[in-house]
Amino acid sequence: MRAITKGISRHFPVIGVMRSYRREDLSHDLIAGIVVGMLTVPQAVAYALLAGLPAEAGLYACLAPMVIHALLSSSRQLIVGPVAIAALMVASTVGEHAPAYSDAYLGITTVLSLQVGLILWLLRLLQVGGIVNLLSHPVISGFVNGAAILIIVSQLAPLSGIGGTTPRLGDGTAAGLVSLAGSLAAVNPAALALGVASLLVMAAFRRWGSALPRLWRSGESVTSHPLTRIGPVLLLVDRTALVAILVVDVPLVGSVPAGLPSLTLPVFDAGLWWDLAPNALLIALVAYVESYSVGKTLASRQRQRIDSHQELLALGAANVAAAFSGAYPVAGSFSRSSLNYASGARTPASALVCGAVIVATLLWLTPIFVHLPHAVLAAIVIVAVYELADFRSVLRDRRFYRPDVVTHFATFASVLLGGVEVGLVVGVAVSLVLFMRGSARPHIAVVGRLGDTPHFRNVERYTVKTWPHLVAARVDESFYFANADTVEDRLAELAVPQPGQEPAVKHLLVIMSAVNFIDSTGLEMLKRLTLRLEKREVSLHLCEIKGPVRDQLGHVNIDEWLTGEVFRTTDDAFNALTAAAGRWVWSGGEDAAPKET
Amino acid sequence: MRAITKGISRHFPVIGVMRSYRREDLSHDLIAGIVVGMLTVPQAVAYALLAGLPAEAGLYACLAPMVIHALLSSSRQLIVGPVAIAALMVASTVGEHAPAYSDAYLGITTVLSLQVGLILWLLRLLQVGGIVNLLSHPVISGFVNGAAILIIVSQLAPLSGIGGTTPRLGDGTAAGLVSLAGSLAAVNPAALALGVASLLVMAAFRRWGSALPRLWRSGESVTSHPLTRIGPVLLLVDRTALVAILVVDVPLVGSVPAGLPSLTLPVFDAGLWWDLAPNALLIALVAYVESYSVGKTLASRQRQRIDSHQELLALGAANVAAAFSGAYPVAGSFSRSSLNYASGARTPASALVCGAVIVATLLWLTPIFVHLPHAVLAAIVIVAVYELADFRSVLRDRRFYRPDVVTHFATFASVLLGGVEVGLVVGVAVSLVLFMRGSARPHIAVVGRLGDTPHFRNVERYTVKTWPHLVAARVDESFYFANADTVEDRLAELAVPQPGQEPAVKHLLVIMSAVNFIDSTGLEMLKRLTLRLEKREVSLHLCEIKGPVRDQLGHVNIDEWLTGEVFRTTDDAFNALTAAAGRWVWSGGEDAAPKET
Repeated sequence: MRAITKGISRHFPVIGVMRSYRREDLSHDLIAGIVVGMLTVPQAVAYALLAGLPAEAGLYACLAPMVIHALLSSSRQLIVGPVAIAALMVASTVGEHAPAYSDAYLGITTVLSLQVGLILWLLRLLQVGGIVNLLSHPVISGFVNGAAILIIVSQLAPLSGIGGTTPRLGDGTAAGLVSLAGSLAAVNPAALALGVASLLVMAAFRRWGSALPRLWRSGESVTSHPLTRIGPVLLLVDRTALVAILVVDVPLVGSVPAGLPSLTLPVFDAGLWWDLAPNALLIALVAYVESYSVGKTLASRQRQRIDSHQELLALGAANVAAAFSGAYPVAGSFSRSSLNYASGARTPASALVCGAVIVATLLWLTPIFVHLPHAVLAAIVIVAVYELADFRSVLRDRRFYRPDVVTHFATFASVLLGGVEVGLVVGVAVSLVLFMRGSARPHIAVVGRLGDTPHFRNVERYTVKTWPHLVAARVDESFYFANADTVEDRLAELAVPQPGQEPAVKHLLVIMSAVNFIDSTGLEMLKRLTLRLEKREVSLHLCEIKGPVRDQLGHVNIDEWLTGEVFRTTDDAFNALTAAAGRWVWSGGEDAAPKET
Repeated sequence: MRAITKGISRHFPVIGVMRSYRREDLSHDLIAGIVVGMLTVPQAVAYALLAGLPAEAGLYACLAPMVIHALLSSSRQLIVGPVAIAALMVASTVGEHAPAYSDAYLGITTVLSLQVGLILWLLRLLQVGGIVNLLSHPVISGFVNGAAILIIVSQLAPLSGIGGTTPRLGDGTAAGLVSLAGSLAAVNPAALALGVASLLVMAAFRRWGSALPRLWRSGESVTSHPLTRIGPVLLLVDRTALVAILVVDVPLVGSVPAGLPSLTLPVFDAGLWWDLAPNALLIALVAYVESYSVGKTLASRQRQRIDSHQELLALGAANVAAAFSGAYPVAGSFSRSSLNYASGARTPASALVCGAVIVATLLWLTPIFVHLPHAVLAAIVIVAVYELADFRSVLRDRRFYRPDVVTHFATFASVLLGGVEVGLVVGVAVSLVLFMRGSARPHIAVVGRLGDTPHFRNVERYTVKTWPHLVAARVDESFYFANADTVEDRLAELAVPQPGQEPAVKHLLVIMSAVNFIDSTGLEMLKRLTLRLEKREVSLHLCEIKGPVRDQLGHVNIDEWLTGEVFRTTDDAFNALTAAAGRWVWSGGEDAAPKET
């Protein structure tokens, strides 16, 4: 019995949290839940329209998915639901199969949600959640920056009252701008004025909102102060009232059915499933990376842990719930989760309160959407995604590791030119290619003895002692297929006497301290190198072989083919190989001062 | 003037070779050229039929392409021309666009040759020939083994006199076997008998040919003795004579037009070019890998060098020549190049002699093909590709590096099930994924001091001294996107006190001797890890940072965020951090004998 309870607790971390629930937590969770709920309503409606779905689909995405996730997640403050990036990916995927805002579109979206959920569960089952590590920082930031611009371009039409629907996404920025340019005549001046005014009000709120009386003391930085976040909801109420009273003629959201979502059953159509699967995989990966990184950031501030396996399970369940409740793919929301944390949420109970706010909205407040202008929602989306974009950190890292900057801008440009899916795939491919390229041309340092110490350093960076018959080279990479050829050629060259150099090299010592494994191509390379050197009467010695590599070499009779010896340390090797007559040579001249210490 | 000559010599290595040509080289080159020519004729015709082309296309492929390659190559004995693997890839590619042996088929093949040549030149121009390193040993061996079986299956029909044409290749073995099973009734007993007898004779030749009077003394191993290689030509003459005399009713090659090839112009059709391009890339890569590795093997036996750039140029030119002379994509032939070497060829002049043999064949010997049975050619192909297959070396390496065995069999199975292109792509993908997987879960060794030496070793492998407040961990991998999460979590765990352990860890020392670079994801990881440890009052120290990584860290103000210090060596770090009071602990017990020395 006890074991069962324990097993249940393990799968529902919320049980453990609730057992230790204290009375004073309640007021915090209550306030945070209400605040987050107030931000959630306008965001949910705005992102639903961005995804090409009716307004209520966004609200449904904040109900079952959010609550189920809260019960399963190992994070205490993570809020899942509709997010801008997932909405963009849904629009780009489903837009190829059906016109936006149609019933068929909604049906395909539920299939997509189900696939996303099942893929997340599959990743958990196969324990291959590590695949998301392929989405490196520069890929994600390039992707998010590109997507932010795509989304902003897509919102320019609703912001200026054109049509009232978003253009086809996923074809890149150029297509979006062209379709916008073609309909400039249709600009609704009232809507544009309303939209631009909303943008200005929201920007002002973000900038100066925290200067208003401080209702909460969270110790957070200015821009994450809760008050700066409730701009959207005030705006929504204010502008809706304005439009309703003045009866301005701008595109409106229109009637939204009141009441809770009913059960939807995703259709099974093998062809459709097959077509959607690759996109579902990409959405699942992006949704998981987003949720996990938000959850991890919040947890690390409170010395808590996020369990990646549990998060796959929870996010998978949230998406399956979305599929069966007429919603669309959900992910962890950066803005709402941090608002939740900043407003003092202590447990997932705040998500339940937030859910209650959504229920209340669906039951009694849907009439206000009738007068809600599209232009205001577009302004809300633009401000939200503008905050996601971040070019500064990339530029900051440009001198640290240049390939990351290349990856970032390749991803960014591919998203803008080819859409989100193309951008993500290109980004991962570019980061892999650049990584392989780096390890295919490894750094090889010729080292010498540092004074009379047992330490050895690069002859180009330090003044060290070398011995003319012995070249000691440290290869800073494992020996494997991508670099075997290069390493062989470069090591063989080291044994060739330089013009005028005398006497010739007799020993090549390869320092293996950075060789973490050797694959069969690398092993062939070592054997071939030994033969090549043997023809020049140079013996090949190895030293500083690590445990795992020594275990590997134990299987291949190294004594039979290696012409030299295996030494434990570079020091041992130098002591043994320089014992014969010869004179030491100082790099940088006999009496040069150390170049670096 | 001198500079021009030098420039020309640089692009035509043959000029340098011919300048130092000695009279005694001539007899060697003459004999080798004739021997190779005699093997080339039957192989060329057999591989042409395998590729779905008329017999003469194979002979043309040994003329302009072979001679032009000989003039440009940096290898002295490499022979390019029709090869089995390229023939299979041509059949699989062009078979999708036109029926085999048709004029349209030949037209598409010349386009493919031109693309292969241009791609090789492009790789040279962009200096990205290193891309072939992605085809690791296990991928190539898996690919060749799978292709060998595909080819053997494809030859079972002509061997047994069915139809006389090869079945559609590229659909995998199963399709080949099914189509064969469906036409069992059409077996021609005479052809089957002839084919099987040919197989037996060739196998016997391979086994015992070298026991015949030794005409050449090459010092090579038994199976590469030249006499074992001329089996095919004797067989061809013998069986053709037999068929001609006995007038047995078996499928024959039929009339082959006499005379030299005329100029062909590849058609330009954008749609077709686009369709063929991916396959052309794969053929180019495989052809280059094959040629380069054969050339390299032969060169290394003679202390010569192969220039990879020059080889791209030469092989590209050979394929362009193939496109304009009615031939098909060519590559370095393993069997003919080693026969050339074993027969004593000293310079590319032997290839010119071989070309003369082909010219003579085209001018005067085409009538013999009228009576040449398909079954004999099928036997020649089967024996040739049987020799290419090699499972032993893979199994030999299975204990050395297991992922390579997985890669080999994944490639092998994909070739058998999905055809050559699918197999190659799957093989490269599997090898990349396994490589990333390995470096995503790096080996992390906790080390201690070896006696009173300045050397530090894994506490699990050696009896070493450790100090309770300090954990020193050597991470055997660079810090980058694929492993940042795992490394962070595992290092953080090391700082958590074990149950009952007392006192707690105060310092975590990360030994960076195997960290070859850090990307921006890795840098974020280090910063996050520092923060996590700081909350547990553990300082993070680094040591043994290599030059390139130190240069990187110089750009990111490490002093501002690192809670500990940067030490030069592990020894320095231990001396500094263990200076305070505390007692040393021996791994394996205070008085334990060293576990390993």
